[in-house]
Amino acid sequence: MIWVIYIIPIFGLAALIYSFVKNRWISSQDPGSERMIEISNYIREGAIAFLQTEYKILTIFVIAVAILLGFANNGRADSSWLIALSFIVGAFCSALAGYLGMMAATKSNVRTTNAARKGLGPALQIAFSGGSIMGMNVVGLGILGLGLLFLLYSNLWDVTNLFDLGKIINVISGFSLGASSIALFARVGGGIYTKAADVGADLAGKVYEGIPEDDPRNPAVIADNVGDNVGDVAGMGADLFESYVGAIIGTMVLGAVFASPDVPEIGLEAVLLPLVLAGVGIIFSIIGAFFVKVKEGGNPQRALNTGEFLAAGLMLIASYFIITNILPTSWNFNGFNYSNIGVFYSTLIGLAAGVLIGMITEYYTSTDNKPVFEIASQSITGVATNIIAGLGVGMMSTALPIIIIVIGIIGAYYFANLYGIAIAALGMLSTTGIQLAVDAYGPISDNAGGIAEMSELPKEVRQRTDKLDAVGNTTAAIGKGFAIGSAALTALALFSAYMHQAQIKVIDIAQPIIMGGVFVGAMLPFLFSAIAMGAVGRAAKQMIIEVGRQFREIGGLREGTAKAEYSKCVEISTRAAIKEMITPGIMAIIIPVIVGFISKEMLAGLLGGLTVSGVLLAIFQSNSGGAWDNAKKLIEGGIQIEGFNYVKGSDAHKAAVVGDTVGDPFKDTSGPSLNILIKLMSVVSLVIAPLIK
Amino acid sequence: MIWVIYIIPIFGLAALIYSFVKNRWISSQDPGSERMIEISNYIREGAIAFLQTEYKILTIFVIAVAILLGFANNGRADSSWLIALSFIVGAFCSALAGYLGMMAATKSNVRTTNAARKGLGPALQIAFSGGSIMGMNVVGLGILGLGLLFLLYSNLWDVTNLFDLGKIINVISGFSLGASSIALFARVGGGIYTKAADVGADLAGKVYEGIPEDDPRNPAVIADNVGDNVGDVAGMGADLFESYVGAIIGTMVLGAVFASPDVPEIGLEAVLLPLVLAGVGIIFSIIGAFFVKVKEGGNPQRALNTGEFLAAGLMLIASYFIITNILPTSWNFNGFNYSNIGVFYSTLIGLAAGVLIGMITEYYTSTDNKPVFEIASQSITGVATNIIAGLGVGMMSTALPIIIIVIGIIGAYYFANLYGIAIAALGMLSTTGIQLAVDAYGPISDNAGGIAEMSELPKEVRQRTDKLDAVGNTTAAIGKGFAIGSAALTALALFSAYMHQAQIKVIDIAQPIIMGGVFVGAMLPFLFSAIAMGAVGRAAKQMIIEVGRQFREIGGLREGTAKAEYSKCVEISTRAAIKEMITPGIMAIIIPVIVGFISKEMLAGLLGGLTVSGVLLAIFQSNSGGAWDNAKKLIEGGIQIEGFNYVKGSDAHKAAVVGDTVGDPFKDTSGPSLNILIKLMSVVSLVIAPLIK
Repeated sequence: MIWVIYIIPIFGLAALIYSFVKNRWISSQDPGSERMIEISNYIREGAIAFLQTEYKILTIFVIAVAILLGFANNGRADSSWLIALSFIVGAFCSALAGYLGMMAATKSNVRTTNAARKGLGPALQIAFSGGSIMGMNVVGLGILGLGLLFLLYSNLWDVTNLFDLGKIINVISGFSLGASSIALFARVGGGIYTKAADVGADLAGKVYEGIPEDDPRNPAVIADNVGDNVGDVAGMGADLFESYVGAIIGTMVLGAVFASPDVPEIGLEAVLLPLVLAGVGIIFSIIGAFFVKVKEGGNPQRALNTGEFLAAGLMLIASYFIITNILPTSWNFNGFNYSNIGVFYSTLIGLAAGVLIGMITEYYTSTDNKPVFEIASQSITGVATNIIAGLGVGMMSTALPIIIIVIGIIGAYYFANLYGIAIAALGMLSTTGIQLAVDAYGPISDNAGGIAEMSELPKEVRQRTDKLDAVGNTTAAIGKGFAIGSAALTALALFSAYMHQAQIKVIDIAQPIIMGGVFVGAMLPFLFSAIAMGAVGRAAKQMIIEVGRQFREIGGLREGTAKAEYSKCVEISTRAAIKEMITPGIMAIIIPVIVGFISKEMLAGLLGGLTVSGVLLAIFQSNSGGAWDNAKKLIEGGIQIEGFNYVKGSDAHKAAVVGDTVGDPFKDTSGPSLNILIKLMSVVSLVIAPLIK
Repeated sequence: MIWVIYIIPIFGLAALIYSFVKNRWISSQDPGSERMIEISNYIREGAIAFLQTEYKILTIFVIAVAILLGFANNGRADSSWLIALSFIVGAFCSALAGYLGMMAATKSNVRTTNAARKGLGPALQIAFSGGSIMGMNVVGLGILGLGLLFLLYSNLWDVTNLFDLGKIINVISGFSLGASSIALFARVGGGIYTKAADVGADLAGKVYEGIPEDDPRNPAVIADNVGDNVGDVAGMGADLFESYVGAIIGTMVLGAVFASPDVPEIGLEAVLLPLVLAGVGIIFSIIGAFFVKVKEGGNPQRALNTGEFLAAGLMLIASYFIITNILPTSWNFNGFNYSNIGVFYSTLIGLAAGVLIGMITEYYTSTDNKPVFEIASQSITGVATNIIAGLGVGMMSTALPIIIIVIGIIGAYYFANLYGIAIAALGMLSTTGIQLAVDAYGPISDNAGGIAEMSELPKEVRQRTDKLDAVGNTTAAIGKGFAIGSAALTALALFSAYMHQAQIKVIDIAQPIIMGGVFVGAMLPFLFSAIAMGAVGRAAKQMIIEVGRQFREIGGLREGTAKAEYSKCVEISTRAAIKEMITPGIMAIIIPVIVGFISKEMLAGLLGGLTVSGVLLAIFQSNSGGAWDNAKKLIEGGIQIEGFNYVKGSDAHKAAVVGDTVGDPFKDTSGPSLNILIKLMSVVSLVIAPLIK
């Protein structure tokens, strides 16, 4: 089985080669008129400037943490500095994936716009290819980095020796720590950037100055488009890199326990299985991506679905053969009877849970169903009722996903104990490559629309890009379901891994110190969301004030004869995002360390409370935000409520616009950061576990 | 010590006599002009009509549950129908306290208005006396009902026998179940009523028809005033009755374990102590109430503070002597060394935690501090930023109270184990009599202002009632701190009591079934809030539509020459409140039963998750709502932000009004219901524990 270690990195390379080829193809496409190139350069430069500033700060952070990690583990002989190495490689791979993905996105956006002048098919092709570069870079760098480190450590130590394997697993978890740290900063920073710009541009433009969305006269419009790239592309890329790597490493940690001499039936197989599944998932993602094609007049929704479901379906079938071939038919460990078919059932449960949560997300947030219609119809009595309805829908939408997660946890555990929970999470994420391609395709299309508007292209170009933008939603909802479900399961897997490493047998919440930990852990997502939302509010306000100033001070701006100072707004977003991401990021790392040194059991309680409350708040915030957004779109499309017609520009629409704006930081800043927060704190705990046991 | 059982009911009687005397005094006061009497009759009739409808439904519910309780316990010999009896008595006492308090409030409001024509002092006197009737009825009926039942059961069985005592304790917990059930329905029903009317009246009146608050031409104005009585008086009364009784019974249950023959130093003392403390607290509440007096030109805030702090201070001193005299100096049980001074320290910790949480609540919600100013200043850029800021402040405000609760739990446990946690909760609630008087004084003053406005009395009358209304806020904030802190501690005490009764030793959240319980429990407050908010939104919309209809169809209404059809709006609120309270109320009772029969450990996990998430969401919602409310008031008072002045009627004010409206169901419907939900589910679990062990 050991030979597999040498194969794993090749899967990663395959993904990177795909990206490289796609990237060259996109570069060869026509970027359109001079005006289009000019605008896309503004966006590209803004995005690069932000990432450079962000990465400068993160470099200092990574070096500092690496040194701390090294010294903290100093007593532990040969492993001390290798954990720092893993950490640096993880952080670097994550940052690189984000950077490459964003470069591809800022190259694809304008070319999508230009292709949309010809038709829907070519535009879809470029937008999706741009997204797929992000997707493949994430999985490629994830598997390559992890695979090479595992190969290196396996050669340094004896991987078949249980004690040495323990060291390898501990050291390699630094990779996950690096990935999660970068992800949190990137999500929070990117999220603050994009929403400060979005909220600022929307409010300043639409409400105060009467300027339509994406109007080139609005000084915040470039910052808004940059935000799509740094938040929804680079931020999301880092996010999924973290999830992907976290699920793999979580499964490896829990699989390592079987490599005990007490269980002769099984050796390293359960450790290698997640790597193999993830690697094969890359191949199917690439195959799926080739099927995303639409002819003129065809349905782009169907094209995306074909690609994603084909990849997932093939992966499911392959999983059966991989699992039953790699793992022994059955084995017994600590009184539990494991079987390879049981592990497969757990994978199946994970996939089913992800799809179901996705469908529920879709139900609560799509324009076709009752909840969004309810919010729209509550908009006719004003903003207050719109907001109350949106908050209500978001809270209500937590119920079913939680019940599914609970059934998933219990089911996966029933079939394969803790290993089952970990592999269920991995099951949802094995086709991350194509899932992320679909996700990243959204902001590229969004940007393409912005460029069309600003370049004053014919109306049908914008209509085509809007159609592309709208079409990804269902497919993206499934992706969201996978993100939420896998986050909950991965967090639980990491939580169990922490217990194992810290040698905690029982976490009895009837003990006040542990209940105290649960309380504090459950409070953190609230605190964290408050910080993120406060940051967006403050930055958006600065943005609005700046836009107001430009309209007052720059003569001819409103008439379109003078140019707005876009860079001032880009700077406001950049400065705010960088400044405001630091506190929550550092908090997320320090709190588990402090609590862990007070009491390792209290830390366990904290992780439990954090996971539960974080998952709930994340669902609530994402779905409220999504539902508000679509309630606005529903009214914009024209809607009849209780016999009256409401359209864009009506009072009901104005109320819905406010709801959408409130939902922005919910769904794009604080909500998605919580999934990472949960896992980052769990990984920090896992990494410090040997020090506090 | 047993003789104490005969004394307890006398404390209850004392409170009822106080209420009776105060009530006669208020009746003897002048209710003012014919117009004032007419309006106050509208309000009174609306309130009575609602309570009658509500109580009819609740009677059916109480009878049904009583029968179920009887049959479910049928196998358990002599205790079977007595638990049903306790349940009925608890429900009846709660309902009666709510009814009497509300009758007093609807009598006091108009007399407060009339007294305000003379001056601030007489108005305060009547408003506070009205509130104190509610307060004393709650504690009086609580202690009398509980005391008499305990007396009865002590005569039926041998209270000094550990086995018999167990039966008594189990049977008497039915009283708490009755109180909590009524409280949930009353809080949810009353909360929906008052906020549907408030939101409906505000939006319809201010925004759409340009009619000022409390204008008699607004058809929803009477419903709004009725709402103050059924929600903020009757609902809150039932709420505090529940807290008070829950804290006493929780402590009794945990004290009963010491009555074991293994611990000869202590017998029934720990069971009787909570009753004695609560009884003595009544006397100090009455004494405190006598000190609430203000001369013309005096400060009513100081008068309220004097009364409340005097009562609390005396109670603290008395607690020391009561505890050290009743309990033995030290005893050992299950390996823990208890001491009477340790129990006193736990009480002290409870009080300190309550005061601190109150001060933090005050910080986040009062007009004098940064958070509310921040919301006000975010209102100048529109509604969206106001809402984002308010949500942020509410979430942020959870951090410190949670840390204090955690320190409180660990501290109280350190000094007196689980009994310490229970007695800490009781410490905060022993002067409920006067705390509730201060709380109920608020809505009476509010109503008095409404009556002044509608009767078109001179402006200074309204100014005086406004001053009265504003003044109670700080004192009420302390009360809120006690409510939140005691809810968390009581829930934990009940949780431990449940574990004891169900014979669960450890609740290990590393077990998936228990973690599943935690997830589901933590989700329930979200679901519950969603239902409550949805109900308010729907009912408010109906109200707005009805007001619009009346303005369109009733000629001369806008000009003030025709009369509005107030009763139509009262009916809408009543119907909505009754209809919408049933689902959440029944859910709260059925869910623990279902989960308990699946797995008693899963139910324990559920209670843990429920408590943590419920406390967090309650703090978040209450404080967001309070902060939005005061941000609006801050702007109404005139405020300078970044060099510009903002006043009532400005765009910033309009934005703040919307924030206040969104906060209404948060702080007055879903938020306060969560405290009851937590305890009701815990009590249901406690009651069914013997059946599922």
